[in-house]
Amino acid sequence: MNRQILLASRPNGVPKETDFQISETQIPQPSDGQCLIRSLYMSVDPYMRGRIRDRKSYAPPVGLGEVMVGGAVGKVLESRGTPFSVGDIVVGGLGWQEYAVADGKELRKVDPEAGPISTSLGVLGMPGITAYFGLLDICDPQPNETVVVSAAAGAVGSAVGQIAKIKGCRAVGIAGSDEKVRHLIEDLGFDAAFNYKTSETGGKLREYCPDGVDVYFDNVGGAITDAVFPLLNTKSRVAVCGQISQYNLEEPELGPRLLWHLIVKRAKVQGFLVFDYQNRYDVALAELSEWVRGERLKYRERIAEGIENAPRAFIEMLSGKNTGKQLVKLVSH
Amino acid sequence: MNRQILLASRPNGVPKETDFQISETQIPQPSDGQCLIRSLYMSVDPYMRGRIRDRKSYAPPVGLGEVMVGGAVGKVLESRGTPFSVGDIVVGGLGWQEYAVADGKELRKVDPEAGPISTSLGVLGMPGITAYFGLLDICDPQPNETVVVSAAAGAVGSAVGQIAKIKGCRAVGIAGSDEKVRHLIEDLGFDAAFNYKTSETGGKLREYCPDGVDVYFDNVGGAITDAVFPLLNTKSRVAVCGQISQYNLEEPELGPRLLWHLIVKRAKVQGFLVFDYQNRYDVALAELSEWVRGERLKYRERIAEGIENAPRAFIEMLSGKNTGKQLVKLVSH
Repeated sequence: MNRQILLASRPNGVPKETDFQISETQIPQPSDGQCLIRSLYMSVDPYMRGRIRDRKSYAPPVGLGEVMVGGAVGKVLESRGTPFSVGDIVVGGLGWQEYAVADGKELRKVDPEAGPISTSLGVLGMPGITAYFGLLDICDPQPNETVVVSAAAGAVGSAVGQIAKIKGCRAVGIAGSDEKVRHLIEDLGFDAAFNYKTSETGGKLREYCPDGVDVYFDNVGGAITDAVFPLLNTKSRVAVCGQISQYNLEEPELGPRLLWHLIVKRAKVQGFLVFDYQNRYDVALAELSEWVRGERLKYRERIAEGIENAPRAFIEMLSGKNTGKQLVKLVSH
Repeated sequence: MNRQILLASRPNGVPKETDFQISETQIPQPSDGQCLIRSLYMSVDPYMRGRIRDRKSYAPPVGLGEVMVGGAVGKVLESRGTPFSVGDIVVGGLGWQEYAVADGKELRKVDPEAGPISTSLGVLGMPGITAYFGLLDICDPQPNETVVVSAAAGAVGSAVGQIAKIKGCRAVGIAGSDEKVRHLIEDLGFDAAFNYKTSETGGKLREYCPDGVDVYFDNVGGAITDAVFPLLNTKSRVAVCGQISQYNLEEPELGPRLLWHLIVKRAKVQGFLVFDYQNRYDVALAELSEWVRGERLKYRERIAEGIENAPRAFIEMLSGKNTGKQLVKLVSH
């Protein structure tokens, strides 16, 4: 049987485990051009909070009673006229389920010799590619520039700061615990980092960015972003990747108006979705892989076990319990 | 004698005429490399509200008791080792005064045969160049795209909408009176326009932008900009030129958070100052002049007479009394 996690109710505010339900169904059969895949790891990511909101967005929301969307990596059990062979490891948008059928053209082959296959959902997957293009393509960081990243200990943020270091920038991370801050500085080589929950963000930013902020990679929005904008330098660049501080609000919150900063600073703020770079994923993955092999780009994973624990892993990730990439490992039953 | 307008007190909120004072002083003497100029027209512009605020910006604020900053066009009375001759018409940052001394390298020669010299402060001056680069360089409008401009009947906005039309776009203007709306549509060829004071901005925008907004040229900020953001299309571009709705507030106001729109829409918001394009002014002026000569780019002026009326003209411009470019004509005394 195929166990799946369905969206049971549309959360208002912080999602609860009861907003999801586990269900069993027959293992599906692939049609021509499709594979049947047994998932091994599933991803839970901040963007999923947007996908279960009943609001027009870049994709229609997950319907009530439907399988939750999400990336997963698994083994091909059956291939009908696809480039993949039985036993291949592939990654794609397989949803929160143990077995999935997917079109061959929506899958990407993963080389299990290149590293743990779980990294295809993290540093060598969507979050790593997001960091790569968001930082390099939108922000074009130059040596000695100051790069600030929020949610710096998350899957995307931790890659952003390390790529900034590889490019010769100063990397300053904002994170939500002292342990994350220690990790960013001691393990990942950030020049500075601080815990926004126990310090005054504006003051810490002024302390750690004495020459202002040239690049801001924004994963969180809200009060943290409000504190960064006044420090933006002339011709600075802001990549808007996520606004996780806002996702669980029951009512949209008001904030200070930020646009006037952009005039005086001639600054650019640009939002992006990683999917827009699909035809350049290979370029990003080649370079990210090289950095990972050379230990210039490190990663951490937090792994929940069993599909039944995916909702909890998702909720914990939204509240920042993870350092690095939050995954769900699927176990045989 | 040289009559000047000095900043007498730093306005909090809406500037009052008593925040300025008129003063008489000796006509200054040019040093080597300088000209003495008799100003004929002075400009009053929204950016000046920022220059009299006591806040760090791209330039230090005007000090109390100092001559107000501003552009003016006038006649060279004396030239000491500059490329200009006596009788030449020149434009530059001469301040609110009847006579000014300025470095030759800060002046630009105006051809009085090419059109009224007052246009060197408007459609063929800073506002026209601002419209040109803000629209073309930052927003790169494409044929059939929808371009929305706020403060559309002002000196910058009226040029933006017409340049958008020249580039084959649909131009939609937001303005503050029925007379301005009529002017935009009937005289300047905007496809649509509406009076934000007597209509619901969001509803009108949805009506006049059925295919969404590809380009937004923002002169005003505040509630009007809040209403535009939800209509931004995928890969849309926003040029932030001014935020006039905010300049006279005694306390900064809060507003809805706008950055999340940018993610979903992969939109870009960029602030700019026209000075950053100084080395390309000649390109802009050549093309703007051609459009003016061909009557593809029309302009209107509102002219106050006498330097003593500059503060009132400035205050009226801030409240939107002008259609087109607000000027002050200096009269002999």
